[in-house]
Amino acid sequence: MESNKKDKAIPKATAKRIPLYFRYLKTLDQSGIKRIKSNEFSQMIQIPSATIRRDFSHFGELGRSGYGYDVPYLIEVFSEILNTDIEKRIALIGVGNLGRALMKNNFRRNANLNIVAAFDANAMIVGEKVNDVEIQDIENFEEVARKEGITTVIMTVPSDKAQRVMDKVVASGITAVLNFAPKRLKVPHNVQVQYIDLTTELQTLIYYDENYNGQDIDVS
Amino acid sequence: MESNKKDKAIPKATAKRIPLYFRYLKTLDQSGIKRIKSNEFSQMIQIPSATIRRDFSHFGELGRSGYGYDVPYLIEVFSEILNTDIEKRIALIGVGNLGRALMKNNFRRNANLNIVAAFDANAMIVGEKVNDVEIQDIENFEEVARKEGITTVIMTVPSDKAQRVMDKVVASGITAVLNFAPKRLKVPHNVQVQYIDLTTELQTLIYYDENYNGQDIDVS
Repeated sequence: MESNKKDKAIPKATAKRIPLYFRYLKTLDQSGIKRIKSNEFSQMIQIPSATIRRDFSHFGELGRSGYGYDVPYLIEVFSEILNTDIEKRIALIGVGNLGRALMKNNFRRNANLNIVAAFDANAMIVGEKVNDVEIQDIENFEEVARKEGITTVIMTVPSDKAQRVMDKVVASGITAVLNFAPKRLKVPHNVQVQYIDLTTELQTLIYYDENYNGQDIDVS
Repeated sequence: MESNKKDKAIPKATAKRIPLYFRYLKTLDQSGIKRIKSNEFSQMIQIPSATIRRDFSHFGELGRSGYGYDVPYLIEVFSEILNTDIEKRIALIGVGNLGRALMKNNFRRNANLNIVAAFDANAMIVGEKVNDVEIQDIENFEEVARKEGITTVIMTVPSDKAQRVMDKVVASGITAVLNFAPKRLKVPHNVQVQYIDLTTELQTLIYYDENYNGQDIDVS
């Protein structure tokens, strides 16, 4: 997890948009589109073109007036930033309905993102295979995570179990967790937790729909 | 979908945090905690206390120095804003792995959020019941949506089918869609689409972990 001075100079808000930019640029490239103007890209991804121009300016003089941005070059830059050639070995903890769905899908459109291990506390399902990955006992997490070279964890466990599981993950030295339990957890400073809270997303959507109908809202 | 002048005065960034505030205040209230200071609340939900104070100031003079905020009062205010007494009747389109998982969970911790109808294009699964909800033919969407009083749609369909399904949803007059396909879709101005893109969330997390390790990053 070497820090990179060049990346550190990128504002957080810009950094957050890089994966989205990257995905759309790949789609363009695959469709044979090698140049794109910021206003066209803006329409496609629904981010203001001024934001795109400002974001892209952090990566050097990439756009030229009347010409637009060079798609393959941007892909190269963002690919390096996102490290997409390097396999990310992911463990999933909590093989309930949602966990199973994620294992079956397994980020299949992204060859470098792989759920290679799964864990649960329920002895009834330990040993079962989902999408060729065997469910293992959560008690063996640290040992298996080390052996498998796990760097990232997806947690799909009930809220009331989340802190205990998180403590186990942290103890194993893993510092990146995608957590589907909305309750905020205590973690050391060096551990990144990304919370996915589907209920709050839904409530926010409905709230916007009922109150801001017809107005542009940037909820991204 | 009546607009509310008072709500319109709330900044978008504040509006987006209301569902999160609401959830934590309910938890506090259920634990018997009736007052909370902004710095305590800040620690709990991991949002800066200055942001909380600024947000809450939009709802009138709710906090008093040395006393903190009145939890039941805030719950009342946010509950009214979020309309949580009123049932939201939700249709899910695309009963694959993820769709099935969402149907089985059905936002069970939120009594007012109910998936009451499900649709798919696959004749093999039409008629099957998941969590007591029968899967219906997507061709009948408009008719069923009207009969069932659907106001919100969750789309868990493959990316290449998303625009066609969205057009059907829009044609039926529904204006709120939670979409799990990351590709941005064309919708009229009055339709709110909230995109949930798990791959981008995961890539963003890994990117932060590898580049900003040990620094505080607000990725919410």
